[in-house]
Amino acid sequence: MTITAELLTIGDELLYGQVVNTNAAWMGAELGARGIRVVQITSVSDEAAAIVAALDAARTRATAVLITGGLGPTKDDLTKHVLARYFGSELVLHEPTLRHVEEIFRRFNRPMLDVNRAQALVPAVCEVVPNPLGTAPGMWFEADGVVLVSMPGVPFEMKRMMTDTVLPRLAERFRPAVLRHRVVQTIGLGESFLAERISAWEDALPPYLKLAYLPNMWQLRLRLTGIQPDHLTAEQLDAEMSERVAALYPLIGEHIFAEGETTLEEVIQQIFIDKNMTLATTESCTGGYVAHRLTSVPGSSGYVRGGVVAYDNAVKQAVLGVRPETLAAHGAVSEETAREMAEGARRALGADVALATSGIAGPGGGTPDKPVGTICIAVADAAGTVSRRFQFDRGREINIQYTAVQVLELVRRRVLG
Amino acid sequence: MTITAELLTIGDELLYGQVVNTNAAWMGAELGARGIRVVQITSVSDEAAAIVAALDAARTRATAVLITGGLGPTKDDLTKHVLARYFGSELVLHEPTLRHVEEIFRRFNRPMLDVNRAQALVPAVCEVVPNPLGTAPGMWFEADGVVLVSMPGVPFEMKRMMTDTVLPRLAERFRPAVLRHRVVQTIGLGESFLAERISAWEDALPPYLKLAYLPNMWQLRLRLTGIQPDHLTAEQLDAEMSERVAALYPLIGEHIFAEGETTLEEVIQQIFIDKNMTLATTESCTGGYVAHRLTSVPGSSGYVRGGVVAYDNAVKQAVLGVRPETLAAHGAVSEETAREMAEGARRALGADVALATSGIAGPGGGTPDKPVGTICIAVADAAGTVSRRFQFDRGREINIQYTAVQVLELVRRRVLG
Repeated sequence: MTITAELLTIGDELLYGQVVNTNAAWMGAELGARGIRVVQITSVSDEAAAIVAALDAARTRATAVLITGGLGPTKDDLTKHVLARYFGSELVLHEPTLRHVEEIFRRFNRPMLDVNRAQALVPAVCEVVPNPLGTAPGMWFEADGVVLVSMPGVPFEMKRMMTDTVLPRLAERFRPAVLRHRVVQTIGLGESFLAERISAWEDALPPYLKLAYLPNMWQLRLRLTGIQPDHLTAEQLDAEMSERVAALYPLIGEHIFAEGETTLEEVIQQIFIDKNMTLATTESCTGGYVAHRLTSVPGSSGYVRGGVVAYDNAVKQAVLGVRPETLAAHGAVSEETAREMAEGARRALGADVALATSGIAGPGGGTPDKPVGTICIAVADAAGTVSRRFQFDRGREINIQYTAVQVLELVRRRVLG
Repeated sequence: MTITAELLTIGDELLYGQVVNTNAAWMGAELGARGIRVVQITSVSDEAAAIVAALDAARTRATAVLITGGLGPTKDDLTKHVLARYFGSELVLHEPTLRHVEEIFRRFNRPMLDVNRAQALVPAVCEVVPNPLGTAPGMWFEADGVVLVSMPGVPFEMKRMMTDTVLPRLAERFRPAVLRHRVVQTIGLGESFLAERISAWEDALPPYLKLAYLPNMWQLRLRLTGIQPDHLTAEQLDAEMSERVAALYPLIGEHIFAEGETTLEEVIQQIFIDKNMTLATTESCTGGYVAHRLTSVPGSSGYVRGGVVAYDNAVKQAVLGVRPETLAAHGAVSEETAREMAEGARRALGADVALATSGIAGPGGGTPDKPVGTICIAVADAAGTVSRRFQFDRGREINIQYTAVQVLELVRRRVLG
């Protein structure tokens, strides 16, 4: 039987926008990677009637309904009680869960409260899904061929339960369809221009291959999704998708920086480590964000020497050796200053390559000459220094992110040579 | 007539988890702030049948259906065509939109393609919602007393259209219910312990006041939501909510750092600016993330001098003056090194206060003595230096975030005195 999934996330905080639904994105990606297509994501309030209506509807659309949220120890958490009533089942004590909860409280040397003890109560008709990292157990129900699994909304608890128990059990219980994704990551070409370049390629795609454009800042991911048709084996589908992807290179190759869900900073790390080179950052307008992105990648200590957040001009001079004359003649936001920042960071931190950002992220700080969104970036290495200036204003947060992508791409092209 | 909203986000990328649904969170918060309750968020695939089914269902639940996604110029974007068929309407050319699209292409000095021109086609029965920042127009439909608005999925385009047109028009068209939120931000006390301390307070809440616990890392937001009952005016509801919030302070006051949707870094900025003090950061395991969080706040250049990302030990020595003996005797991840980092950053960057982080974020780098998740933090000021060591491992990303919250809270308590 083919499996399709619906994700049902419960909690007023999602509806009020006080929490972003990152759980659903993570679950969608993990399920998709295992050939399980998510047909809908539904978020409803912590109200019994809304939860019941959503459960009824989800069961008509999907063969697996994965529920998160509403399992905490506090009074606003209703999911367990609603599920017990929904399946006409009493809450009973689950001894292994009680021992697990007691063990957690012992380990943290904290007194156990009645509400914590109550977490070991589960509907009699469910199977418990262990929650190694938390106190609220997961619950696995089956009814009329549909599986319903309830998990806590705490991301790291849910992820561990999915990986350890729920995903393997779903693969056992259903035979997932062959669903393949190929992602091609591009940078520096707008959506409609890219679409025009690959228009003939796209028109020639067979019906079982579907293309999506996923733009984000200056980057654009192309996602080719294949659903195995009757006349192809899984291997033939894979081979055809590889051929189709290869045929993109003559069309847009200079804009492709990776295949798969690889980030720009992961690509940069691989290049630096392959070439045995080191990198330093110095940031003004991006305030540490570029360093944060680079060092979020495991293993980044293998090539990142460090960085300087040079917010104040005194720091630019004292730590990076930017000349007062340069600051006076061109200002902090200038290609000249960015170049000296990069060269200074390279020297001060002893790195092969250094990047620099300086700009007016806004909302304040703009002038007629240099309005908000004036951004200068530079990259220095043994061969010299390159710099760019551009204008981009979509609000502080986006300006910071856009500047980061620009300077990372400048580094990538520079070290690739 | 009371208004309720449903958010319908269209796009396979949401279901496959390739994009996180931040649009829905933003819309939920903006609508909530205007007294419009979101009853459901639904994400469906770029398939006509799925979109139509979701539209049919949403109209039974809500009086306003806000749709995002699927309006791009490429072939995977179906929403406009589906809406035209759904309302039995032809696509017609909207002249002002065509002129707006032409103007955008003129400004960027780019050739205009047929697919761009086609963006000016809209269903005859809709009113156009202008999209000042992009080429895809929004569409406002009304049927049987229900408003349906379609907007692009590009966040900054959608946000501008909501703010300029959609939110004001919804407020005009419906009379939003009085819905109030009060958020109390706490730090350093676990969910069940906090719940126990305020248990009597919570039990005494009247039925029109609802409490939610929103834990995130070491922080926990308490959200009190009030829906105006018949026997109270809006002012009386506000006054009662203020009293209830005030009554929390005797119970958990030492853990409250703010009211409202204020972040820890905004609170810190306010304290530093009020006290006319400056801050420097130095980070090893957090790799620039603390500086990024601080400098994401507009106006942070008023007190942040800068920072040093000291990934490599040579940088810790050369830039911060950490002594080689300290590194040799205690290692880079130690309270001793964190203290010297903070003191060195304070000196090198000329700041009143400096913070430092050093730890093993993982997944590599752990030892039996110092496993992954061993974290040391320090804060130095004119009066001296404080440090903490703790153990916390939930994976690299969470370890970095948790360390940041810990060191920010140490700074906050230190400067508050």
